Amino acid sequence: MTTSSPTVTTGAFPASRKIHVSGSRHKDIRVPMREIELHPSAGEQPLTVYDTSGPYSDPAVETDIARGLTPLRRNWILARGDVEPYEGRSVQPADNGFVSADRLTPAFPDLRRPLRAKAGRAVTQLAYARAGIVTPEMEFVAIRETQRRAAASQETRDGEDFGASIPGDITPEFVRDEIARGRAIIPANVNHPESEPMIIGRNFLVKVNANMGTSAVTSSMAEEVDKMVWAIRWGADTVMDLSTGRNIHNTREWIVRNSPVPIGTVPIYQALEKVGGVAEELTWEVYRDTLIEQAEQGVDYFTIHAGLRLHMVPLTVDRVTGIVSRGGSIIAKWCLHHHRESFLYERFEEICDICRAYDVSFSLGDGLRPGSIADANDAAQFAELETLGELTKIAWAKDCQVMIEGPGHVAMHKIKENMDKQIECCDEAPFYTLGPLTTDIAPGYDHITSGIGAAMIGWFGCAMLCYVTPKEHLGLPDRDDVKTGVITYKIAAHAADLAKGLPGAQARDDALSRARFEFRWEDQFNLSLDPDTARDFHDQTLPKDAHKVA
Amino acid sequence: MTTSSPTVTTGAFPASRKIHVSGSRHKDIRVPMREIELHPSAGEQPLTVYDTSGPYSDPAVETDIARGLTPLRRNWILARGDVEPYEGRSVQPADNGFVSADRLTPAFPDLRRPLRAKAGRAVTQLAYARAGIVTPEMEFVAIRETQRRAAASQETRDGEDFGASIPGDITPEFVRDEIARGRAIIPANVNHPESEPMIIGRNFLVKVNANMGTSAVTSSMAEEVDKMVWAIRWGADTVMDLSTGRNIHNTREWIVRNSPVPIGTVPIYQALEKVGGVAEELTWEVYRDTLIEQAEQGVDYFTIHAGLRLHMVPLTVDRVTGIVSRGGSIIAKWCLHHHRESFLYERFEEICDICRAYDVSFSLGDGLRPGSIADANDAAQFAELETLGELTKIAWAKDCQVMIEGPGHVAMHKIKENMDKQIECCDEAPFYTLGPLTTDIAPGYDHITSGIGAAMIGWFGCAMLCYVTPKEHLGLPDRDDVKTGVITYKIAAHAADLAKGLPGAQARDDALSRARFEFRWEDQFNLSLDPDTARDFHDQTLPKDAHKVA
Repeated sequence: MTTSSPTVTTGAFPASRKIHVSGSRHKDIRVPMREIELHPSAGEQPLTVYDTSGPYSDPAVETDIARGLTPLRRNWILARGDVEPYEGRSVQPADNGFVSADRLTPAFPDLRRPLRAKAGRAVTQLAYARAGIVTPEMEFVAIRETQRRAAASQETRDGEDFGASIPGDITPEFVRDEIARGRAIIPANVNHPESEPMIIGRNFLVKVNANMGTSAVTSSMAEEVDKMVWAIRWGADTVMDLSTGRNIHNTREWIVRNSPVPIGTVPIYQALEKVGGVAEELTWEVYRDTLIEQAEQGVDYFTIHAGLRLHMVPLTVDRVTGIVSRGGSIIAKWCLHHHRESFLYERFEEICDICRAYDVSFSLGDGLRPGSIADANDAAQFAELETLGELTKIAWAKDCQVMIEGPGHVAMHKIKENMDKQIECCDEAPFYTLGPLTTDIAPGYDHITSGIGAAMIGWFGCAMLCYVTPKEHLGLPDRDDVKTGVITYKIAAHAADLAKGLPGAQARDDALSRARFEFRWEDQFNLSLDPDTARDFHDQTLPKDAHKVA
Repeated sequence: MTTSSPTVTTGAFPASRKIHVSGSRHKDIRVPMREIELHPSAGEQPLTVYDTSGPYSDPAVETDIARGLTPLRRNWILARGDVEPYEGRSVQPADNGFVSADRLTPAFPDLRRPLRAKAGRAVTQLAYARAGIVTPEMEFVAIRETQRRAAASQETRDGEDFGASIPGDITPEFVRDEIARGRAIIPANVNHPESEPMIIGRNFLVKVNANMGTSAVTSSMAEEVDKMVWAIRWGADTVMDLSTGRNIHNTREWIVRNSPVPIGTVPIYQALEKVGGVAEELTWEVYRDTLIEQAEQGVDYFTIHAGLRLHMVPLTVDRVTGIVSRGGSIIAKWCLHHHRESFLYERFEEICDICRAYDVSFSLGDGLRPGSIADANDAAQFAELETLGELTKIAWAKDCQVMIEGPGHVAMHKIKENMDKQIECCDEAPFYTLGPLTTDIAPGYDHITSGIGAAMIGWFGCAMLCYVTPKEHLGLPDRDDVKTGVITYKIAAHAADLAKGLPGAQARDDALSRARFEFRWEDQFNLSLDPDTARDFHDQTLPKDAHKVA
């Protein structure tokens, strides 16, 4: 069912078919979902589940990574009349890490001219929302979050939402309002029309990000693209491309063109490569050029560590693990060397102007996040968070969409303080955390140490959880590690959805529990997050057929 | 380093040595701990960690499963002068499931005559504690919980303990007081003198139980014993033998004689086998005989589902998953068939008299625990919990040690209610929960869905966490599954210890974090819960040697 190179992983999930739900305001909207069929003895309708996997799991669609996905948002973007195509910057040797010609990965065959806002226009979902416009993207996510469940009036609400504003029905107007308030974002670069819109905010389903890194030298673009395809197959809502080194410009193009989920990056990584890896030599000009390069390619959100200010660096000297964020280390080194505020902080308004012209969302980075239980919730971490709150307001003033990154390593009793402080400092801008890991003593199992913290902070209000794989701290994740990380985080996100009392969240638990109680084994497998593993584990010890029918 | 049959798994952990800390009140106490040596460049003392693994990880001790472990508590028990050896019941064909002679597993070679309280004497740790006696067992656990950390006055306390009474220093007198109040137990059958005393209570380190089942037909007693040895190697504090079927009497003897940790059972499982698997045919006489059989062998705690009363059964009819506890199903079936209260409930005082004569602790079973998110915290579950509270008081009046079993499947927002209600109903008798699983949608990953809930309820005050393996709901766990389950639950228990603010709990996190920050890879591996996996994951992707030295 799942094959890897030379093509990417495709195929339907067992007993599942892709369906598309149409919009009512915007008739050309087709929101993908997955319907899981149950055994006739169940006497139940098929269960509809949220589907991040894109056309790759739809046998009716033939994908070709050299063509890229259908640019489903292209017409919506152009119809707004506020963008224009332009020549764009030309690819430079530095963009691909000065790789020699014989080792250069091929350029994506069909490069579109990039789009950019017309002079003076803000083309962000936030700007539209504030103007009272319900975009097709907004209606899309309203339908997507609803997952075809019946009107909320039928439902028993059950949960503790800690002051969230979770509605009974998710209407396009509610989505617009949440975005207008800055409480949710739809990462949707105008140059990534292939993306299926998704929303990140505390009043919606908790989302999961998976990180990936491309190989510096690779024989097959399919292998690189498949890293993304594999992660979204198991449920990643966004993918961050954290590549460094060579060929990253060209490889990124292949990934974005083939990605149905938003792609995030940390642009300082590529900028650093362009200056030979020497942090002190970074300049605003190189960084700015990198932002534009990536914005033109269609990157949907940028991690920007603009909250790390010079005076905060000394706050880390007594830490057990200093500064563990890669971006944070780079900026801290630069600030100390030049003894001045970083260009990220000083030029923040100019960065906003760039993001506003493409609708690149901010993921304001936590460069001073704790790297150990010992360092959690310390003065350095919270000083930066306060600055991130200030920057949030600046970005909002510029009509830019913003989310805030959070830790990291935090014992359970200190997790809620992170969430509460983030809400307070950042006025409910979506929080996006890495774990947090709740203990440091289990390298090899940090998907679990962090899955505990992720479930809890998701419950408390965190909008997106950045996955951690079993290889965290030890090495590079392979395909199995990525799957394990994604599934663990889908568990955390779903446990959070249940605890928050998101309407309809329990439908899948209930369907699976009924199947379990009635010994409908096939239904149990098919309804689970990972049908392959469930079936395999069952078959390892129990008779093949006898236990599988109702 | 780790080998399986034909002998059991032995060998030291990397860079580790077994040490023994002596008692001051009781001079013959030798409390085992593990010392992990660090790289000289660290400039740190070795780290001492809690050690459940018994003599099997001590190269200085040669174990022989046909001889059993040294009965280190034997003299303490005899010195109290309140027990006497007696003939004991003779083994009957039913005890081993009427297995034919050619398939009978060998009896343990050297059977001691069982001990029992002299007439009228209570030989429980609770009775001693109430009488103001600090037993060697109590001093042993005080030393064991302290783990050689310095006096608490030096420590920064940090945590949220939800009204627990965690002391700065764990003195023998504190242990005595906690046991006297019923807030902690030391499961320690007088017929299991091989056990290294351990304590279960909310003011101590959170403990982990691993379940095992023996094979009905086996070629090697070493294989059966090794299931227990393997679980304690990775950190199980107690082991429950949930075997059914044939040969369980003889196999259990091998396990108890070789176990340094308390062994728990669910006696109704064996009683059911004795009546041919027909629940309705169970009688008090068969059950009582089974209790004595197992008490004589040295089982340290019994799960007894005495709280499930006839009138509660109808409360389960509208559940999604009915009654999922195996013991609960058996009792409910019996109650409905005979239309009367179970003999467990009606004869509870007589059961107490048996437990009191051997110091078998109660683990009052939650036969009506929820089997799905949908059924959590319902009327049936809480009705039973209230009865468990009544039974707790009866057991205490009989000088019996008691803990209370809890769920099961509970979404995060309903977990704390379980803990709070248990404390209220059962007057702080230790809580011992299975998970709870925080979602039902991930069969194959239920160690993780439940590890989240286990960490949280441990933080809230649960004293022992019953592990769940990846095979839960799907099949029988193999060796890898058992290890994964135990490590996951050690993570949950430790995360809870940190969040509760147990003094000294963070020492291992801090040592590992320092090693990480200084790139002392070997120290990182050696300090981790699973050094083998940490090292293996590292070696899979990073150069073998270059990254391993400071």
